[in-house]
Amino acid sequence: MVSQSHSRIIRSRSPHNHPSISTSIRWGERSALDRGPVVGTLVNHNHRNVIGTHGGSYGIYRALSVASGELDPGHQPLLEHTEPLITIAPNEAWFDPTKIVSLDPWGAIVIEMFAPLIQKGYQIRPTIAITQAHLNLPEIQNAISKGTLTIDGEILKSNGSIKVTKIAIDPVWYLPGIAKRLGIDEQSLRQALHDQTGGMFPEFLNNRELKVWLPPIGNTTVYIFGNADQIQNESRELTLRVHDECNGSDVFGSDICTCRPYLIQGIEESIKIAQSGGTGIVAYFRKEGRALGEVTKFLVYNARKRQGDRADQYFERTECVAGVQDARMQILMPDVLHWLGVKRIDRLVSMSDHKYNAIVNSGIQVIDRIMLADDLIPLDARVEIEAKKAAGYYSA
Amino acid sequence: MVSQSHSRIIRSRSPHNHPSISTSIRWGERSALDRGPVVGTLVNHNHRNVIGTHGGSYGIYRALSVASGELDPGHQPLLEHTEPLITIAPNEAWFDPTKIVSLDPWGAIVIEMFAPLIQKGYQIRPTIAITQAHLNLPEIQNAISKGTLTIDGEILKSNGSIKVTKIAIDPVWYLPGIAKRLGIDEQSLRQALHDQTGGMFPEFLNNRELKVWLPPIGNTTVYIFGNADQIQNESRELTLRVHDECNGSDVFGSDICTCRPYLIQGIEESIKIAQSGGTGIVAYFRKEGRALGEVTKFLVYNARKRQGDRADQYFERTECVAGVQDARMQILMPDVLHWLGVKRIDRLVSMSDHKYNAIVNSGIQVIDRIMLADDLIPLDARVEIEAKKAAGYYSA
Repeated sequence: MVSQSHSRIIRSRSPHNHPSISTSIRWGERSALDRGPVVGTLVNHNHRNVIGTHGGSYGIYRALSVASGELDPGHQPLLEHTEPLITIAPNEAWFDPTKIVSLDPWGAIVIEMFAPLIQKGYQIRPTIAITQAHLNLPEIQNAISKGTLTIDGEILKSNGSIKVTKIAIDPVWYLPGIAKRLGIDEQSLRQALHDQTGGMFPEFLNNRELKVWLPPIGNTTVYIFGNADQIQNESRELTLRVHDECNGSDVFGSDICTCRPYLIQGIEESIKIAQSGGTGIVAYFRKEGRALGEVTKFLVYNARKRQGDRADQYFERTECVAGVQDARMQILMPDVLHWLGVKRIDRLVSMSDHKYNAIVNSGIQVIDRIMLADDLIPLDARVEIEAKKAAGYYSA
Repeated sequence: MVSQSHSRIIRSRSPHNHPSISTSIRWGERSALDRGPVVGTLVNHNHRNVIGTHGGSYGIYRALSVASGELDPGHQPLLEHTEPLITIAPNEAWFDPTKIVSLDPWGAIVIEMFAPLIQKGYQIRPTIAITQAHLNLPEIQNAISKGTLTIDGEILKSNGSIKVTKIAIDPVWYLPGIAKRLGIDEQSLRQALHDQTGGMFPEFLNNRELKVWLPPIGNTTVYIFGNADQIQNESRELTLRVHDECNGSDVFGSDICTCRPYLIQGIEESIKIAQSGGTGIVAYFRKEGRALGEVTKFLVYNARKRQGDRADQYFERTECVAGVQDARMQILMPDVLHWLGVKRIDRLVSMSDHKYNAIVNSGIQVIDRIMLADDLIPLDARVEIEAKKAAGYYSA
């Protein structure tokens, strides 16, 4: 296998006018070594085979650490003992170059999968990390007191803390796949990414051999409640909440929207399904303010306050400021579900038609959609809910 | 004033080999028009005077919206009614090119300040947005029930919600100032930013006339409790919590660290000082996992679990994986405090010596430091606290 992959690396070495590529990535190949590693190292440039570097937007803080002399740019990460605490089993979606295009399905197990290359001195970093934790949430404690949640000692511990597996996933974008998902050609995508970022990476235009980009954006976090091994077992039930970051509500409890209440409902539903032998998943995406950012979001809040906050103008107000109502690109969201091996969602805790359509159109079956419990809607968030229902969001 | 600034614009037009610059930025000038606008527009490239574009890392989602045809790249934002709901008064720090280097002090009031240029067709966007909100937090409701917080009807409403002013601040980096802050020369900073991001933005090296960068990283959010006008009034007391993002605790209540408990304590202290006529500030920075990102953080969690979680190895474990113990660059953090006009902090709700030293060395006086209340420390977070105390974090 090693010598095979080695010979393959020789064969795939790129022309001399692109000395920076010494391994190639064949997105969707069935084995990790056939697919090839994602190498974003800045230590040995001859080993690089991607645009950009690791860590999402935190690569920029890493650059500052090097600039200030605090970080040795030649540092070799010691990854011993960092391996995943549980295994996400490879499934057919990993081998389909169109099913997963925005993350590296092999990203959690690079130390094991690419050992032959790591031994040859290739610096290959995990883009996914899998750990376990206990969560302690006041709303869950209240639900236990109220009797709407029951302690079972396994999923929900005697002290009210929740046992979870959590997974951090850095973005790894396969540009031909992203373009196909967006329904455009690769060159148009490369041109737009170059021009609309202010010329972020010249390789978008001048090195078409580099097909993979590590974009400087936030990561995705997946919380799994119950047995992760059962996700791919279609005889077991699965509950999912796909949640897009809203710092103002998720952390600070702002009462103008329903984000944290719906997130908590997703966690409660996930606990319940796990307690009944199924699996609950909460996937958290760093897409603040519909991926338009918090500055735009606050500008829109002000326009809403000053013009009179009306449901029929809710989305329009965002479009006036940002030129688009929503930039979250939900068509990329199901990638993480396919990576996990999700085939059927029994209870989707979301009212968003964008999310629902993206999931169903990606080939995952959705049985029931769970609306936000009415008593969880803050008074000031009524406008948002009415606007969303009017815009085609799900309501019973 | 208009014609002056116009003539200045003519004079400062850059050589023909850099046609992209048509207004220059004179960081630290006393008036907005003398300082010059930050123009990151992608509509008229001749007007641009920065590296990169607006929206932090969300500029990339914007690019995808354009690529997919959902967003007209020529969209002109309609900013009517989006102006700040309160005024942050300019103060001497705004006019000191060394005090504020990572945000645009004029960023919230560009519509007013740069009206003459906007009338000339310059697309100038706010990089700061100021709004108001009510927060509803279960921990605060519990504190009210316990009697540790009292409803006053103004700061803390009868339903237990908290009235706040909140400010979203996108990063605007003045490279010569960032370099000086890091104690290196501008060219070394430019070289490191270019090389250590995998060649992000060739302008770092080939257009030294562009001194300002809009980096694709997360924003900062400031929550103000009580009267923001009193921040610069040194006869009034001020409480500050500077908090770096920890999504696992801030949102999900992970019990391995003390982040959310300390954030809540900062909010409670801010409510109390506001109720007694002072001002409370909570500044929230998107610096997940010590600005190393969540993937690195989870890798380190696994190493800690597998090697036996010991306080004396807490920071070492991070350094093994990341090459550095912390990448948060706290020396940039006080910028937001100087922008607000903070001169003295009566109660700093933080144990971090990095944060304390950065604040004091930037010329802000700190009277008392408030330790994390012992009863708020989750059992699993004892290792973190002991490690931090051993590493020089403040403890009474």
